[in-house]
Amino acid sequence: MNLLYRLLAHRTAQLCIENPCYLGASFLFQGTGKKICPVPVDEDGLRVEELPQNKGSLLYVTPSHQFPTGATLSLKRRIGLLRWAEETDSLIIEDDYDSDFRYDGPPLTALAGLDRSRNVFYMGTFSKSVGAGLRLGFAVLPPEYWDKARVLKAQMSNGQSWLEQAALADFLGQGHFDRHLRRLRQVYKARRDCLVKALHDNFECPVLSGTAAGLHLTWRLPQDSPPASLIQIKARERGVGVYSLRSGASFDFNPSARDELLIFGYSSIREDDIVAAVADLRRLLRADNGKESPQRSTRRSRAR
Amino acid sequence: MNLLYRLLAHRTAQLCIENPCYLGASFLFQGTGKKICPVPVDEDGLRVEELPQNKGSLLYVTPSHQFPTGATLSLKRRIGLLRWAEETDSLIIEDDYDSDFRYDGPPLTALAGLDRSRNVFYMGTFSKSVGAGLRLGFAVLPPEYWDKARVLKAQMSNGQSWLEQAALADFLGQGHFDRHLRRLRQVYKARRDCLVKALHDNFECPVLSGTAAGLHLTWRLPQDSPPASLIQIKARERGVGVYSLRSGASFDFNPSARDELLIFGYSSIREDDIVAAVADLRRLLRADNGKESPQRSTRRSRAR
Repeated sequence: MNLLYRLLAHRTAQLCIENPCYLGASFLFQGTGKKICPVPVDEDGLRVEELPQNKGSLLYVTPSHQFPTGATLSLKRRIGLLRWAEETDSLIIEDDYDSDFRYDGPPLTALAGLDRSRNVFYMGTFSKSVGAGLRLGFAVLPPEYWDKARVLKAQMSNGQSWLEQAALADFLGQGHFDRHLRRLRQVYKARRDCLVKALHDNFECPVLSGTAAGLHLTWRLPQDSPPASLIQIKARERGVGVYSLRSGASFDFNPSARDELLIFGYSSIREDDIVAAVADLRRLLRADNGKESPQRSTRRSRAR
Repeated sequence: MNLLYRLLAHRTAQLCIENPCYLGASFLFQGTGKKICPVPVDEDGLRVEELPQNKGSLLYVTPSHQFPTGATLSLKRRIGLLRWAEETDSLIIEDDYDSDFRYDGPPLTALAGLDRSRNVFYMGTFSKSVGAGLRLGFAVLPPEYWDKARVLKAQMSNGQSWLEQAALADFLGQGHFDRHLRRLRQVYKARRDCLVKALHDNFECPVLSGTAAGLHLTWRLPQDSPPASLIQIKARERGVGVYSLRSGASFDFNPSARDELLIFGYSSIREDDIVAAVADLRRLLRADNGKESPQRSTRRSRAR
């Protein structure tokens, strides 16, 4: 992301970013000193009609599985986004950080795959599929950017450890990566199913998003819920990790917004533990609302 | 180096750097937009008396084996340098990039080891001793900088590949690194001896520096020699890699200076090949000076 930003920074007057967004992207953009336009996200992803209309923006966007809300950018908005880039002479960084994991529905075409004007710079990572400790990702660039990208990479870190790159190249070339992904998708889908079921079993009609793909989902808490940040702290005391938008890997440019989104990562938690953690969360929320009951509560009463 | 620079940039108004210097450092400093003061180097290293006297500088320096000249900073100048830092409220980055390899004379105390005022930030690398493809180095910082350094590293690259770090920690902890260094020092010392002898055998009293340590040495060419850049090009055509100050890993801020320094890296060349390459260089320089002789030349006539 650093590399793509530096590659494109000279062409961009202002930086547009989804809100809420990935913390790493907000750090990067906030460190540049340029004007930042946070653009709101809803259940169909980035609200394209709220993008600025002045020329020369750089937009960072996560269309497949918006981070952190999990929304998928609708086809209509994808087309609108590409038109915006053309009309405003803007560039787009498409971060397809977890597209290896899609459990429901047809495969998605990346924004870069729909782009006919070469305004979209696609990036991906092996952090989700193989391991974040590798520090390996990739970008897809038009050939005229290759030399500059090489020079920038040399200036930034003088290259990347060779061993992981060589091993990963073999892993991909010999077909192991595909098999690994198929197996992982099964494991993660089972965990996703388990988490969704546990949330439905323990809470009344939870409003979930981002369930179709990726390694996390979000729950829009009901109106009378305590704020997500408070739930995060209380849950942590019980050994359960759930996250508000203002912590973990996400960032919210709108500090006055209602703190109602709770993020669940499930990729590294066994199903038994998921069931136990969600049950624990139910007890926590019930206690927090002062409705502790000596009787076993019914499912309907558990959420509030 | 990037990390140290960013850690200290807020405290520094201007950037001082050895001239000639390491190319990577010149890239880093030139990319900052700050004022740069190149400070000349002679056979005793950085000319400390030419440092600027205004407050708040950051100096990048390679005292053990100046890159690229190979000069060792004298003790008198080390003391002068530390006094300069105190008096001008300046900070020093000491890059001890090849101090694992010292063949002659007593061990050197690092500048950071003499520093009582905590103005020196020491950095080292495993690129020379284990392999540049690891991308692993280290810095020694006062504890009050640790948290900021962690945050900066996270922002720059989100951490470093874990596998090399874990393997290297074992390699160090189990004593293999020390044994490895002892063995490498023998190999490199033999190559250094071979190169120095070959240069003396083929050229008349070559003025060499940087022979006591490191993995490269430099030859200050005689007055009537062709420029180092030309020798580099001609030697390359014959498959021999020698470098001027304006190429390879070094940089010269003074483009009008006489191009008289030729750099020889010897760590990865077998002794047979060193002997053959230097003999080839002699033939090249003789031919270049138009003094090709049908007779075998004597040693005296070979250099010019």
